[in-house]
Amino acid sequence: MEKKSDQKRLEQQMDFLREMDKSKEIFRQNYLADGSRKENDAEHAWYLALMALILREYANEEVDLLHVICLVLIHDAVEIDAGDTYAYDKEGMQDKRERESRAADRIFSLLPPDQAALLQGLWEEFEAEETMESKFANALDKFSPAYLNHVSGGKSWVEHGVTFEQVMERNSRTGEGAKALWVYLRGLLESDREKGLLRF
Amino acid sequence: MEKKSDQKRLEQQMDFLREMDKSKEIFRQNYLADGSRKENDAEHAWYLALMALILREYANEEVDLLHVICLVLIHDAVEIDAGDTYAYDKEGMQDKRERESRAADRIFSLLPPDQAALLQGLWEEFEAEETMESKFANALDKFSPAYLNHVSGGKSWVEHGVTFEQVMERNSRTGEGAKALWVYLRGLLESDREKGLLRF
Repeated sequence: MEKKSDQKRLEQQMDFLREMDKSKEIFRQNYLADGSRKENDAEHAWYLALMALILREYANEEVDLLHVICLVLIHDAVEIDAGDTYAYDKEGMQDKRERESRAADRIFSLLPPDQAALLQGLWEEFEAEETMESKFANALDKFSPAYLNHVSGGKSWVEHGVTFEQVMERNSRTGEGAKALWVYLRGLLESDREKGLLRF
Repeated sequence: MEKKSDQKRLEQQMDFLREMDKSKEIFRQNYLADGSRKENDAEHAWYLALMALILREYANEEVDLLHVICLVLIHDAVEIDAGDTYAYDKEGMQDKRERESRAADRIFSLLPPDQAALLQGLWEEFEAEETMESKFANALDKFSPAYLNHVSGGKSWVEHGVTFEQVMERNSRTGEGAKALWVYLRGLLESDREKGLLRF
């Protein structure tokens, strides 16, 4: 902390971290496991990181766990500006990419240039869903809310009248990241359809 | 997922993850950056993991980033049973270790034995504060709420009449993990004392 440039670097990093604190107030559509309230982006990112640690053995190929965790820690940062777009909101999904791209520019550029580039790269990698780490991270990102919906008795599915086919479509690539988790989840979804928690 | 034992393993892992979801409802004493409400354990763990990623260069020695992140992701799991003990609550601090130890036994043993041992080890390592990764993780664990208190205008300090000396004492080992962060934080704390946000 002796040089002015060092001080400036730390201040940029803290500005970014302060901005990221807003993730704690971006609410998603799915509920917590006990159905008491909806989950926010910070909680969701923590839950995915924990899932990555516990469920990594189900990735279709060996993954770099640190890389998966970094992807999930920041994957929803853009929602600070762009908001959470509900997966089954067709209109909102149309300009999602553009809104999120502007948000990434603004938020990641709060950081010193080397870290801004690092996080921009992580975010783009997550979105592209091409690397094995990204496929696994995306699988968890779809698996987690579906699982929480299941254990909360389908609360947000019932609220929005979501169909079995919509959740299947939403999870159409989950098996590319983690086949075993997809098999497990499909079993839960089928039983939820039988119970009427998911519409036919 | 062909063998019965595989199915059982995944079910144990999901039982643990479902239990850990409760971290989203364990509230701490410090507020979010904007002072709107208190922070919960899940948000706090995510914030520490993000800090580890962004601020790792300030660890006094090189650290294994994945290891630091695993430590912070699960460091407060025990509070699901033991609750959050406010750092400046002398009475609560007395039997904290015992309450938390029982909680660790119960919560981690939901997992298959290999992972139960892994997480128990991570938690004990965090508590012991001996490895460099643990020292850095602990430094972030003290730095983060002090920083959030600072940016929220000292809200929880004022509420509890916390003194400058108490925060200094609470952070007495922060410099062992990250000297540069401790120098930065001390500057913030001194200015907060001048402003009367921390009592003399």
